[in-house]
Amino acid sequence: MPDLSRRRLLTGAGIVVGAGAAAAAGAGLVRQAQPAPVEADALGGAIPFHGAHQAGIATPVQDRLYFAAFDLSTDSREKVVAMLQAWTAAAVRLTAAQEVGGGATGAEPAPPDDTGEAIGLPASRLTLTVGFGPSFFDKLKLPGPERLKELPHFPADKLDPARSGGDVCVQACADDPQVAVHAVRNLVRIGFGTVSVRWSQLGFGKTSSTTPDAQTPRNLMGFKDGTNNIAGTDRKKLDEHVWVGDEGPEWMRGGSYLVARRIRMHIETWDRTSLKEQEDIFGRTKREGAPYGGTREHDPVVLDRMPIDSHVRLASPASLSGATILRRGYSFTDGSDGLGRLDAGLFFLAYQRDPEKGFIPIQRALAATDPLNEYIQHVGSGVFACPGGVRPGSFWGQGLLD
Amino acid sequence: MPDLSRRRLLTGAGIVVGAGAAAAAGAGLVRQAQPAPVEADALGGAIPFHGAHQAGIATPVQDRLYFAAFDLSTDSREKVVAMLQAWTAAAVRLTAAQEVGGGATGAEPAPPDDTGEAIGLPASRLTLTVGFGPSFFDKLKLPGPERLKELPHFPADKLDPARSGGDVCVQACADDPQVAVHAVRNLVRIGFGTVSVRWSQLGFGKTSSTTPDAQTPRNLMGFKDGTNNIAGTDRKKLDEHVWVGDEGPEWMRGGSYLVARRIRMHIETWDRTSLKEQEDIFGRTKREGAPYGGTREHDPVVLDRMPIDSHVRLASPASLSGATILRRGYSFTDGSDGLGRLDAGLFFLAYQRDPEKGFIPIQRALAATDPLNEYIQHVGSGVFACPGGVRPGSFWGQGLLD
Repeated sequence: MPDLSRRRLLTGAGIVVGAGAAAAAGAGLVRQAQPAPVEADALGGAIPFHGAHQAGIATPVQDRLYFAAFDLSTDSREKVVAMLQAWTAAAVRLTAAQEVGGGATGAEPAPPDDTGEAIGLPASRLTLTVGFGPSFFDKLKLPGPERLKELPHFPADKLDPARSGGDVCVQACADDPQVAVHAVRNLVRIGFGTVSVRWSQLGFGKTSSTTPDAQTPRNLMGFKDGTNNIAGTDRKKLDEHVWVGDEGPEWMRGGSYLVARRIRMHIETWDRTSLKEQEDIFGRTKREGAPYGGTREHDPVVLDRMPIDSHVRLASPASLSGATILRRGYSFTDGSDGLGRLDAGLFFLAYQRDPEKGFIPIQRALAATDPLNEYIQHVGSGVFACPGGVRPGSFWGQGLLD
Repeated sequence: MPDLSRRRLLTGAGIVVGAGAAAAAGAGLVRQAQPAPVEADALGGAIPFHGAHQAGIATPVQDRLYFAAFDLSTDSREKVVAMLQAWTAAAVRLTAAQEVGGGATGAEPAPPDDTGEAIGLPASRLTLTVGFGPSFFDKLKLPGPERLKELPHFPADKLDPARSGGDVCVQACADDPQVAVHAVRNLVRIGFGTVSVRWSQLGFGKTSSTTPDAQTPRNLMGFKDGTNNIAGTDRKKLDEHVWVGDEGPEWMRGGSYLVARRIRMHIETWDRTSLKEQEDIFGRTKREGAPYGGTREHDPVVLDRMPIDSHVRLASPASLSGATILRRGYSFTDGSDGLGRLDAGLFFLAYQRDPEKGFIPIQRALAATDPLNEYIQHVGSGVFACPGGVRPGSFWGQGLLD
């Protein structure tokens, strides 16, 4: 029924409010009222866009990521509403392996609605997740959620403003990077005149799993980290630690706060460290990923068996009064750094119900004593309020902006 | 038998000549004489490293690319030989889904030989292809092949020196980007003290096929381009247009010349162009990829039916006295450009027997009149002589350097 909701939206009042490119893109969507239905599941797995929560948080982690942070180029709420409506309509189609706008014909003088590079590709489990940064609320003079604050400075942070912040973010995850890049690019295009890209990050390989008992993929240090991640099926833990509840404004309920960190790894230094030291730093064996004292990855972490300052011990909820996050991390490499070294590392995405009980205490503990700090540096950062799920006929952030 | 050749190599005279990191890495390889054999085919497809030609040229195009260009940090041929020996030994293992060095044990004080992030991953059709730039021969005072010359300047080139040139290149192609990045990173590590990374490029999606009749993947303009590519199975065309024959120095026979170009696409401008104009520019339909006058992608190109300045017509061998290349292209996106736009495009790799009869005349024709020039810009460039295939017991460039 996604098509029904799309048409309902597009023939409703919302879309005509907008001006400029967002509205034009919306108009483009109207042109073809009956796009051919696509059997998305048969085409490689489509993940439903609508639901109580945004997809892409508890969803089993897809292989690839494209993440974009945007700056508003307007302070007009109406323009932002129009864009978010058009984005939502596009996202419903994109996540179902349909072209934005339903495909243009050669007879029309207008550019094609869809940029085309994903034609014929399956849905590839694409999810699109949207969040709003603290500056979004300032610029639009909207009350921000109490729990959304700029992150504190952590020792050894070396944040590049050109890779930090942003009024709006879009996390695109998919098993095919072409599908993820195509989705973001089409949202960029629809948003022209309302938002522009502030920074973006391609993640080539996932380093997290939210599937219970699945092997955790390795990061660029060669280790399995974040094994004790919250499972996407663990409703109790999700409700306790990830989803915003009654404490939040209504539009945030079922949503979550996202902290994004670009963590550069000094892989050359790491690679000169002995296996013993590497394993002591993590508190896990490299080959199996087993915590010290165990033999398999998912064996329980027994803190007494860990070196006192090991990464696993420091980051453990038991060491941090229960502070915990849902982690979606991706390896990146962005060329070289001008000094003959690869610019590579971890793009870390943490979802939580309250950053003060999630990322912030964890990072405070790690920034103070984690021996990993010799080998990593946080060089980019953002924090975003990701609203609850989108109901059919609604749009991203409707409860906030309406 | 790859293991036999590896041991033969490592106990031979070559490896002990080298000094520094390359030799140290070689020594690491000796530690474990009998690595556990890996059933690479069962693990996801291993492509044989040895052969008459380097793998990665006529090999069916893999999904992902990681390409690195290196500068020599030495003028010692001995150090370069030692590195190339160690690289070859590592490549034999990497392409067979084996760890570099066979895996270290925790008891040893030395760092692990392998950085570890590909442990457990299948071979993923990894190929590693090495080439030498004109500056390689200058720096090592070696006679370069006559056909290897710096490329001429083409109109509208806007080459960034930080993304151009290089003494040595490594093209890593694999279906899993983690496998490709892991391979390059381990070669970087082995090469420490002998080479350093000048620039590198991740290609997230292939845009070329060398498999006859296969659908050509789409580039970021949404088009199928390079459909009339040389098939990797077309021995006659490969011998005529790709592989160096008797005209080249002995070490280049069976090799090829590689031209690499980083082509930025102005996708925002392209996306504002009508479908009709887009199709006229390529001379193909967008949806099917059919040449004008045809209905399917692989229908023959009839030049008379193309707009006179269409890309397909200008680049056609029939328009260019037979000039032709084997094309391996990958889409890239490297964040945003500071102006709110995605830095995205095509990383174009052309293999040919003679650049003067391949890339150079094609690019001369395109640079002069291709209407695509309004939407693209060449921003990085390199040319490399890729030696013939490596025989068991030999190493990359042995015929040149011995």
